[in-house]
Amino acid sequence: MNQVKAYGTHAADAPLAPLEIERRTLRADDVAIDIMYCGVCHSDLHIAQNDWGTTRYPLVPGHEIVGKVTHVGNDVTRFAPGDLVGVGCMVDSCRSCQACAEGVEQYCLNGVTMTYGNDDRHDGSMTQGGYSTDIVVSEAFVLRMPDGIELSSAAPILCAGITTYSPLRHHGVGKGHKVGVIGMGGLGHMGVKLARALGAEVTVFTRSDAKVAEAKSNGADHVVVSSDDAQMAAVAETFDFMLDTVPVPHDVNPYLAALKYDGTHILVGLIGPVDPPIGGGNLIGKRRMIAGSLIGGIAETQELLEFCAEHGITCDVEMLDIRNINEAYERMQKGDVRYRFVIDMATLNGAA
Amino acid sequence: MNQVKAYGTHAADAPLAPLEIERRTLRADDVAIDIMYCGVCHSDLHIAQNDWGTTRYPLVPGHEIVGKVTHVGNDVTRFAPGDLVGVGCMVDSCRSCQACAEGVEQYCLNGVTMTYGNDDRHDGSMTQGGYSTDIVVSEAFVLRMPDGIELSSAAPILCAGITTYSPLRHHGVGKGHKVGVIGMGGLGHMGVKLARALGAEVTVFTRSDAKVAEAKSNGADHVVVSSDDAQMAAVAETFDFMLDTVPVPHDVNPYLAALKYDGTHILVGLIGPVDPPIGGGNLIGKRRMIAGSLIGGIAETQELLEFCAEHGITCDVEMLDIRNINEAYERMQKGDVRYRFVIDMATLNGAA
Repeated sequence: MNQVKAYGTHAADAPLAPLEIERRTLRADDVAIDIMYCGVCHSDLHIAQNDWGTTRYPLVPGHEIVGKVTHVGNDVTRFAPGDLVGVGCMVDSCRSCQACAEGVEQYCLNGVTMTYGNDDRHDGSMTQGGYSTDIVVSEAFVLRMPDGIELSSAAPILCAGITTYSPLRHHGVGKGHKVGVIGMGGLGHMGVKLARALGAEVTVFTRSDAKVAEAKSNGADHVVVSSDDAQMAAVAETFDFMLDTVPVPHDVNPYLAALKYDGTHILVGLIGPVDPPIGGGNLIGKRRMIAGSLIGGIAETQELLEFCAEHGITCDVEMLDIRNINEAYERMQKGDVRYRFVIDMATLNGAA
Repeated sequence: MNQVKAYGTHAADAPLAPLEIERRTLRADDVAIDIMYCGVCHSDLHIAQNDWGTTRYPLVPGHEIVGKVTHVGNDVTRFAPGDLVGVGCMVDSCRSCQACAEGVEQYCLNGVTMTYGNDDRHDGSMTQGGYSTDIVVSEAFVLRMPDGIELSSAAPILCAGITTYSPLRHHGVGKGHKVGVIGMGGLGHMGVKLARALGAEVTVFTRSDAKVAEAKSNGADHVVVSSDDAQMAAVAETFDFMLDTVPVPHDVNPYLAALKYDGTHILVGLIGPVDPPIGGGNLIGKRRMIAGSLIGGIAETQELLEFCAEHGITCDVEMLDIRNINEAYERMQKGDVRYRFVIDMATLNGAA
């Protein structure tokens, strides 16, 4: 066991503060990682504040982790000290069920082990995330950072990126497809870049005129102001896919109407109710579908990292000193970040 | 033009009564059909009563039509007098758009022409349905009744049958799949027969113990009483598909929970709101989908007729004297029919 520095919280209503946590002694398949950067995801905030009612404390969030391998267990074959690596939302799964066999460990039939707040499958200790100097993870859940990728801005690829890439790939989005992206935040801006790189023609839907220029500067081919009925009517039945990244309840019916027959509306952000309710006729009348998707598998995440390196895709980030994490959470809640905070973990050494 | 006998209504609150309508003189591609049987669909009732607000009067319902060809237009190549044929929910479409080219005329980008209550694309007259002695339809929308199929009980295949068959085929339902059927009416009982014939293992979901025996007698492999929490919990994450034929708002969330990851909930009956709302997490957490589907294309309907003939599948019907149609509508509204009324059109000659 090693005591390592971290930033975490002891209660739903407590601010994040320095604390020390234990990282396990390496098992045979483990990789020890010196964390360089960690992205800040909206789920970090939800779970720190116990918004979903399942949080145990103390808790160290963080699941967009980039760092350097320092040590490896005896059976590790794929990584060596000095390698640049990443860890995303998952650190383990049963590895034997159908979902694991298919490479969709996030749907593990025996329950995936998330990077923080879950019980380790072997020793029962609670997993702790990447707001920390170090982490120890089985090599099966460690990603290789491709040569030349900019490490700090690549960190959010491990959650925001894969969450949008996985459904685009699963549903076969590519050249000739028209894709709408709803919501221009951490997920949405990655969705625009990835859908375009996959060959699709991308339209951003935004509620206000004020965001039109911003959406175009993010690479959108077109922008539709969704509060403008005439603009919405003009795009009726023209889209193959909608990538809906909005995390709060909203009316999906106007977006369904913008889908062609056989079009698919993909939810990646909305855990709560789809309210107002979907009109059944909006699905039936044109054989449309609503699909959900959760992050992505390990092999697919590795594929995405290579894809991003090849296409020069990174996340737009604002670098963060970990001592400002509570202020960053406040700004995230107001939507005041373009588009992802990434903690420079070097700041943690001066923090405690 | 020919005056023919029919049964129809002059107003939303008027009962159905004998009336005369005109059938057009044959165009070059037209087939004239002497109607022998016509199934009674729930939509007939909805449209007769103007439940969807778009009905024009006088209206003759009926879109599950079986009869015999009496005359054909000069350019008709596929049918000859004496042929046994069927006409379903559609009688025309643009025939040139992508949907028509793909054989899904029901999603015609220029608007399909339904069998009754729509404007004919050529002369603008309103189409009138199958509660009538005769109908005239372009050969492109006429189905051939396979040898040996029992004609009266085959009529509902043209709507209730194709409405359930089309999504089963579109989503690739077959051997090794577990399919749940929700709702045991005209659509549901056909869904059970068709899903089983396609090789799936079929479970009927019913709200009450009282219907368990009935569901089994309809060929269900298993029955789950959906109001029994223990029974629902026992089938969590076990189904590949749900075929949901319920036409009124109902909670789909317990059925989503019964789907495996990547499972699909197919709506074919619910035009109104999906209320209570779907939990977004029920889709996202397991990459599940909700899909709609509307009837089926003409080629697919012909395929289904052959499939039914080959597998000995017909609809369970109660034969009806057209003079009792108003009483039949009342019984349908109470769910008192096992499972489809079919009008013996010979009774129309004695009716006026």
